[in-house]
Amino acid sequence: MTELAEYLPFWTELTADQQALLDGACTRRHFPRGTVIHNGREDCVGLLLVLSGQLRVYTVYEEGRELTLFRLLERDLCLLSASCILRSIQFDVTVSAQQDTWALHIPADVYQRLMRASAAVAGYTNELMAARFTDVMWLMDQILNRRMDSRLAAFLLEQSDLEETDRLRITQEQIAGNLGTAREVVTRMLGYLRSEGLAEPERGGVRLLDRRGLEALAGFGRKKSV
Amino acid sequence: MTELAEYLPFWTELTADQQALLDGACTRRHFPRGTVIHNGREDCVGLLLVLSGQLRVYTVYEEGRELTLFRLLERDLCLLSASCILRSIQFDVTVSAQQDTWALHIPADVYQRLMRASAAVAGYTNELMAARFTDVMWLMDQILNRRMDSRLAAFLLEQSDLEETDRLRITQEQIAGNLGTAREVVTRMLGYLRSEGLAEPERGGVRLLDRRGLEALAGFGRKKSV
Repeated sequence: MTELAEYLPFWTELTADQQALLDGACTRRHFPRGTVIHNGREDCVGLLLVLSGQLRVYTVYEEGRELTLFRLLERDLCLLSASCILRSIQFDVTVSAQQDTWALHIPADVYQRLMRASAAVAGYTNELMAARFTDVMWLMDQILNRRMDSRLAAFLLEQSDLEETDRLRITQEQIAGNLGTAREVVTRMLGYLRSEGLAEPERGGVRLLDRRGLEALAGFGRKKSV
Repeated sequence: MTELAEYLPFWTELTADQQALLDGACTRRHFPRGTVIHNGREDCVGLLLVLSGQLRVYTVYEEGRELTLFRLLERDLCLLSASCILRSIQFDVTVSAQQDTWALHIPADVYQRLMRASAAVAGYTNELMAARFTDVMWLMDQILNRRMDSRLAAFLLEQSDLEETDRLRITQEQIAGNLGTAREVVTRMLGYLRSEGLAEPERGGVRLLDRRGLEALAGFGRKKSV
């Protein structure tokens, strides 16, 4: 599959046998929007290389609240859907298709074999893990430091970028889930954003009114995934 | 150095040359209690294999608040003091000696060479990273889910275990820093613990009165490092 050579930086460092093993084991998979692909640590579905669409990785807290940890877009490799490949991963996440998604599925045992045989594969895995670790550290920083209005502004801008529209179709419950807070807090904050002329709730969603104003509120150092 | 063979699980998978390289590059280092060993991403002091004592890894937030991410005890290898070895580590932590500490120092460039050459070293690094990622996920869960009284109880028990005493010498500021909260919150919570007969503030510290009661408050699933 041509995507393997194109998307996996360690491809050229594999032997011909290893390339053949990987190529033979991968399959194309389709996940309609909303599919829960991976749910918790026991569930080792394998790695997913996103070809199109978007995966969302989140934790589910008490009372069913969700907190988005990060999102995976085209060319991203989802490691945590194969948490069995590293025994030190001792936490549970859920992976779902946030959009209609096509991905290459790499079986966990095949990846693990390559990782044990090839320093290049293991090194790439390290970089992936470090990148996701960074996402979570950044999220923790947001939770501890930043005011909710700033987080909400960053989230709305992010969604707007991802969906390429200023009229987001998203409920206040969904926003609250993404920010790890209660719907009431989101309602209050949206009221504040409306009073500032930055965004307003509308039927079935939220409309962005002033991107520059939202950007100022979101602050510098805004990162891609919220 | 005998500790290398004993503490590093990949030792036997290294070639004789790699073993000699590592052995020749390591030095014993002493860090008196309170030493700040590593501070932020720019600072790449190398890896530290703890021989005795304790390292604390924490982030410093606005207004100087600290949040302890995890602690490293004997036999633990500190990776984040050499964050330059993985370019995807894009967050800052501080590492300090919480107790008088002896460690083996492994230069970052030597470790990086081994990691690139040996799938065993890279794989071990993956496990380390996954373990620390797990610590942080667990901490996030604490912050989002658990009530402060429960977190404080867990923290006091943890300190008591580490210091092997029920009379902790620790200020309320230090407790607040460890829990990522304000001193006022700690004062209020200690008042609550005293009213419950679980623990009481005393001059220069806190005294644990009822370990079972504290354990019940801390809840099940209490982990080693808070």
